[in-house]
Amino acid sequence: MEFTIRQISKMLNGQVKGDGDAKITMLAKIQDAKAGHVAFLANPKYEPYIYSTAATAVIVKKDFQPKKEIKASLILVDDPYSSFTTLLEEYHRLLNFQKTGVEQPSYIGENCTIGKDIYRGAFSHIGNNVVIGTNVKIYPNVVVGDNCVIGDNTILHPGSKLYASTRVGSNCVIHAGTVIGSDGFGFAPQEDGTYKTIPQLGNVIIEDNVTIGANTVIDCATMFGDSTIIHDGVKLDNLIQIAHNVEIGKNTVIAAQTGVSGSSKVGDNCVIAGQVGISGHIQVANNTSIGGKAGILKPVKTEGQKLLGMIAYDVHDYLKSYALFKKLPQLDDRLRDLEKRLNGKS
Amino acid sequence: MEFTIRQISKMLNGQVKGDGDAKITMLAKIQDAKAGHVAFLANPKYEPYIYSTAATAVIVKKDFQPKKEIKASLILVDDPYSSFTTLLEEYHRLLNFQKTGVEQPSYIGENCTIGKDIYRGAFSHIGNNVVIGTNVKIYPNVVVGDNCVIGDNTILHPGSKLYASTRVGSNCVIHAGTVIGSDGFGFAPQEDGTYKTIPQLGNVIIEDNVTIGANTVIDCATMFGDSTIIHDGVKLDNLIQIAHNVEIGKNTVIAAQTGVSGSSKVGDNCVIAGQVGISGHIQVANNTSIGGKAGILKPVKTEGQKLLGMIAYDVHDYLKSYALFKKLPQLDDRLRDLEKRLNGKS
Amino acid sequence: MEFTIRQISKMLNGQVKGDGDAKITMLAKIQDAKAGHVAFLANPKYEPYIYSTAATAVIVKKDFQPKKEIKASLILVDDPYSSFTTLLEEYHRLLNFQKTGVEQPSYIGENCTIGKDIYRGAFSHIGNNVVIGTNVKIYPNVVVGDNCVIGDNTILHPGSKLYASTRVGSNCVIHAGTVIGSDGFGFAPQEDGTYKTIPQLGNVIIEDNVTIGANTVIDCATMFGDSTIIHDGVKLDNLIQIAHNVEIGKNTVIAAQTGVSGSSKVGDNCVIAGQVGISGHIQVANNTSIGGKAGILKPVKTEGQKLLGMIAYDVHDYLKSYALFKKLPQLDDRLRDLEKRLNGKS
Repeated sequence: MEFTIRQISKMLNGQVKGDGDAKITMLAKIQDAKAGHVAFLANPKYEPYIYSTAATAVIVKKDFQPKKEIKASLILVDDPYSSFTTLLEEYHRLLNFQKTGVEQPSYIGENCTIGKDIYRGAFSHIGNNVVIGTNVKIYPNVVVGDNCVIGDNTILHPGSKLYASTRVGSNCVIHAGTVIGSDGFGFAPQEDGTYKTIPQLGNVIIEDNVTIGANTVIDCATMFGDSTIIHDGVKLDNLIQIAHNVEIGKNTVIAAQTGVSGSSKVGDNCVIAGQVGISGHIQVANNTSIGGKAGILKPVKTEGQKLLGMIAYDVHDYLKSYALFKKLPQLDDRLRDLEKRLNGKS
Repeated sequence: MEFTIRQISKMLNGQVKGDGDAKITMLAKIQDAKAGHVAFLANPKYEPYIYSTAATAVIVKKDFQPKKEIKASLILVDDPYSSFTTLLEEYHRLLNFQKTGVEQPSYIGENCTIGKDIYRGAFSHIGNNVVIGTNVKIYPNVVVGDNCVIGDNTILHPGSKLYASTRVGSNCVIHAGTVIGSDGFGFAPQEDGTYKTIPQLGNVIIEDNVTIGANTVIDCATMFGDSTIIHDGVKLDNLIQIAHNVEIGKNTVIAAQTGVSGSSKVGDNCVIAGQVGISGHIQVANNTSIGGKAGILKPVKTEGQKLLGMIAYDVHDYLKSYALFKKLPQLDDRLRDLEKRLNGKS
Repeated sequence: MEFTIRQISKMLNGQVKGDGDAKITMLAKIQDAKAGHVAFLANPKYEPYIYSTAATAVIVKKDFQPKKEIKASLILVDDPYSSFTTLLEEYHRLLNFQKTGVEQPSYIGENCTIGKDIYRGAFSHIGNNVVIGTNVKIYPNVVVGDNCVIGDNTILHPGSKLYASTRVGSNCVIHAGTVIGSDGFGFAPQEDGTYKTIPQLGNVIIEDNVTIGANTVIDCATMFGDSTIIHDGVKLDNLIQIAHNVEIGKNTVIAAQTGVSGSSKVGDNCVIAGQVGISGHIQVANNTSIGGKAGILKPVKTEGQKLLGMIAYDVHDYLKSYALFKKLPQLDDRLRDLEKRLNGKS
């Protein structure tokens, strides 16, 4: 990607001081910037760098008064830090959405409806009867099963896989290697000790604005017509397990390596740390906060609780008990001491 | 897939009442069913739906007496629920085994023996000297290394990977993204603090009727001629780690995110919950039941135990201790109270 | 691979006794060996096998005196066990590096620099501006993003994925399904309960001699110009989570399913067991040893500690407390008994 300083300034409602036609290809911190880069100066303690930087342009506050000569062009704005953040976001957007067109070889089944501005990377495989919105980016080696539906502006990173009939909303990001729609873990024990597979015939629905990390797995629902549902705005990290028929409420955030067992419903706006385990068939209330490695074995009925522990309960109570757990040898000594004194007396 | 009502009725040893030639393309619950669907009525509380359903056919008990007019054709059977289950299983089978033939481009090495009714998806990669049975389904982007052997009716879902010399039995299902045969984690510490890689030259053997979830990893055995073995009928969930030289006994079931360390042997018919960790070089007896998040650090010698805890032991004893752990602040108070009383006295 | 006995003997500085021209295709234990195999005899208790083995050659000690007739050719060496280990390593090297050339179809972008003796498997996808060293092995279905750099002798196993701008050093091994450079898990909470994505613009740097297991995930750094760094000689197992801006010190070893949260720095020469969780923004000193399932919530400042526990501290202290945790019901009884006695008295 390549812009002139003038184009960048326009994006930021700024004013150019110096050469507006020079080309910018990259963003950088002022202390690291090289020719072709644009940097910013917000914190005065970095001011010395502006006089020596090799950056082609620096974003500065409108009223900035240089104390020495500056080689870089300046872009004058109201708030250099937030302007730079705007550029970062724009850069990120361009980075993710710059690819368009179809690389070959790639595979597409029959009867698909594909929106415009799509990118289909080489070795991506789209099944039959798939519906894909506009501006969707399907990276190399992605597999999209039959009858899937994918909303606008959604990105499927390399090697992510959607089983048949998965529905993904708009503005979603699915990171590399993630699997959506694999069979729920359902087996009926038989009298001879073997297990019979219970057919898993539901699907997964991912609503809008959902981000899912890498190598995460979301299983489909068991029954025909049922769905495992990830609601609007949910953010899932890497290596997470979401079992069959689970529902994750709106804007809930779950950190890496956490697992949610079959048929559990996690509420809205929960914050769940890493390596947490949630048992099957329970409900977790809205606004629940769960600490790292906690095990949730019972329904969480009251909203807004903060939980911790292998069989989790109130975090403050848990920490009090844990502090005493560390002192158990002293408690034992004190108990023994009392026993001695009482035995000596009696 | 498309059947006439008559064909479905025949499958279920049923009797058609109404139009037997109408086409069925889908199964559904009676409350959700649309034209082209077949539903069932078993529980009388759903009877009202049968008079309004848009389903093309409904499976009912032989002696069902409608109270009003029904638009759908009826399939009369002895047990509507178990008939519907039969249909679900058949549908699942069709869904998984309907694909046949070879999509292009796909890659196949030299000297391979491939059975009939195989499906090889586009971008699947079969190495040299591979032997594949009949009715095997290899989905897109699967990689099968050199010298692998795969039994009849086995399904490799998208993007699963078998390293060279892996052997998978018949009637197995390997879900998307799962890796079988990667190097065991073996490194010899050197005097300078670095590690030297110990060559991992064994393989993995998956016996028959094994199901493995998505993004699970099973490492190969270390020594030439040795194998990591997953025995007949084992069911592994998603994101599980099975280290080098591990053996998992017949019909053992392991839930998601559990890890088994190198050279451990898990017995037959065990039930292991999620996020469990089993140390290396230990044996776990048959019929052991292990609760979520447990750590198994020592051999489990007696069969039929139920274990729980970070360093696991009997589940009931663990729960008793955990209940008292929660009361440690009160225990501390009681102890302090005794100390005061004794000190006051002495 | 195929060698004559004479070639193998030369590799080991040995001496052939018998037919030096016979062909060897495989290594095996003496009790399992078949025609075409080379075995070894080090432990005298295996001597009986040498008189009956079908092996084409056996490696023996220089001064070995057969008690009966031996059909196999002998390779006389100083130390048969270490000679066999040498052969195993050589075999492993050949196994991993035997593939060369480019299988079709595979994809390569513009402006790439590729060293010699490379292997690019079918359906591998190399982006634009990628630099790849000599003797690099890129297995099928690997995805290498734009602007990546890969050092000499590095192996990318099937379906591993490098996001754009990832740098991997020399002599590294990345196992199947592993994802490097996915977005860090960064979201800014908004007033309406939704989250705004913080653009993740840094990259990942993997130094030399690093081995990474299967289905592991390493996120990129957040800020432009910053990197998540895996230093020289690190060994990571399967299904590990390394978050954004983490640094793992030289020669540190981490077992499966462990997670390191954002911005934490793990020191050199640490040994970290499986299913460990390390919180964000903390530093772990060099030579720290962390037991299975431990949670590291605070900085570890002193080098050489051994830690265990859900909120980890010294392993010996933890084990003492855990032993008393198991005895909490008895402690409670003893306390109750004292209370009774004191109440009886007062």
